[in-house]
Amino acid sequence: MVTETATSLPIVRYDGQLGSETTDVLAVEEPLEIRAAGEPLAITMRTPGQDDWLAVGFLLSEGIIKGLGDVSRVYHCGRPGSESHTNTIDIIPAPGTTFDIERVSSSKRGTLTTAACGVCGRKSIDDLMGRCPPVKSGPSVTAKAIRRAIANLRDSQPTFVLTGGVHAAGVCDSRGKLLVCCEDIGRHNAVDKAIGSLLYKDEWPEHAAMLAVSGRASFEMIQKAATAGLPVVASVSAASSLAVSLAKKLGITLAGFVRGNTMNIYTHPERVSE
Amino acid sequence: MVTETATSLPIVRYDGQLGSETTDVLAVEEPLEIRAAGEPLAITMRTPGQDDWLAVGFLLSEGIIKGLGDVSRVYHCGRPGSESHTNTIDIIPAPGTTFDIERVSSSKRGTLTTAACGVCGRKSIDDLMGRCPPVKSGPSVTAKAIRRAIANLRDSQPTFVLTGGVHAAGVCDSRGKLLVCCEDIGRHNAVDKAIGSLLYKDEWPEHAAMLAVSGRASFEMIQKAATAGLPVVASVSAASSLAVSLAKKLGITLAGFVRGNTMNIYTHPERVSE
Repeated sequence: MVTETATSLPIVRYDGQLGSETTDVLAVEEPLEIRAAGEPLAITMRTPGQDDWLAVGFLLSEGIIKGLGDVSRVYHCGRPGSESHTNTIDIIPAPGTTFDIERVSSSKRGTLTTAACGVCGRKSIDDLMGRCPPVKSGPSVTAKAIRRAIANLRDSQPTFVLTGGVHAAGVCDSRGKLLVCCEDIGRHNAVDKAIGSLLYKDEWPEHAAMLAVSGRASFEMIQKAATAGLPVVASVSAASSLAVSLAKKLGITLAGFVRGNTMNIYTHPERVSE
Repeated sequence: MVTETATSLPIVRYDGQLGSETTDVLAVEEPLEIRAAGEPLAITMRTPGQDDWLAVGFLLSEGIIKGLGDVSRVYHCGRPGSESHTNTIDIIPAPGTTFDIERVSSSKRGTLTTAACGVCGRKSIDDLMGRCPPVKSGPSVTAKAIRRAIANLRDSQPTFVLTGGVHAAGVCDSRGKLLVCCEDIGRHNAVDKAIGSLLYKDEWPEHAAMLAVSGRASFEMIQKAATAGLPVVASVSAASSLAVSLAKKLGITLAGFVRGNTMNIYTHPERVSE
């Protein structure tokens, strides 16, 4: 079985003793170079598919675009017929729009970033905190809605079921209903894809309230939620100290270890009711 | 409780109902800017501590140094007294040595990398594959030794026990005995720390044989093992398609989902005996 996101490969299975050759299904990982107006901006290791969502989600998260209105075209721009054709994507600004890619890249040669790092090219955390908008007060949510968001996320991971090797991220409304769920081998990419997909709707869903992630809630997850105006972040896994600092500062409710009937609410619990 | 790697923060615990405020221990996450000969090379989000190991391990993995003999000094170079003091580290070349940092950074402004991405600044996967040395044939290992390596790794994660929020990487001999184990909030950083620590020994331990990791075996894990001459990579979690391609090409035995009595051997099973 070979799909865009999962591939079947020969393996030797050990089960107390070495078995004969069988097959296993693995998540596909390939590099994607993201360009903005032709300028290489970042290379990320991603699971192919939904590259357009990933690219615009990344640009939104980096503060380079505010929405799809800033974009005239998103296209794979590698040499046709080459392997790199589908592994390079370019986002062309709309007429009259200029991308401020200095936000991401430094003018210093060798100061570098990727989709995996939210702080690159910036002088300090304070710089970044200054750049991220605090979220509006946003709707209150119930603890049940947070649990429902994570439960819905768990039920929407077809590539994980096949491979056990990808992360998932979803955007939910305040009741925990999934508006979109995306999978990727990279935690950050899954979030960029999910948020990016919403930009492709006729209008940004105003009822989008929660970012639900299968992996750790690190710093960049909070950054991405803030840029998308999502006041709640829920994670199956742990939160980092820096994620808590940023969430606190930006007015984001951060819940971690959302498992079964329990969770830890790290910041802004006043938004959560029973 | 506050340590360099873990910090205690107030939380609200939900356990079927909203509880009162308590505390939880979280993994510390802070940015580290890695410089080589004064040139900013990468910024990575890491758990503080063992920054020197992380920095030299990163430079080894990027092919910039071959060993500590290429280095005269590794030091935190931020402005004394500032928060950034311990979040910037510089590696100064030994007299007569020049760092070829073009390997990492592109001369194109805006082509960017971090410790989290092994392909940045390179034109293609083929370029990178050409750069990674195939491992020597290396010792045979038993499946039991691979299981022992992962079991030993699990028993050597004090920060994970406290926080549930960090990865671990260890280098083992061919019998699965840990030579070193390091933890970090970033998968790649844990590996760079573990491999980097071995450079600080009087001589590279020739019996180093296995890289054991708690997280996914992605592309960069194979790259790092190859650069360190480790012929076996064992992961508690899944492997990616690209990790398998690279391991196959470089002669590395890759085992994933090493759990209990079972594992999947993705590449070069001829090195593994019962």
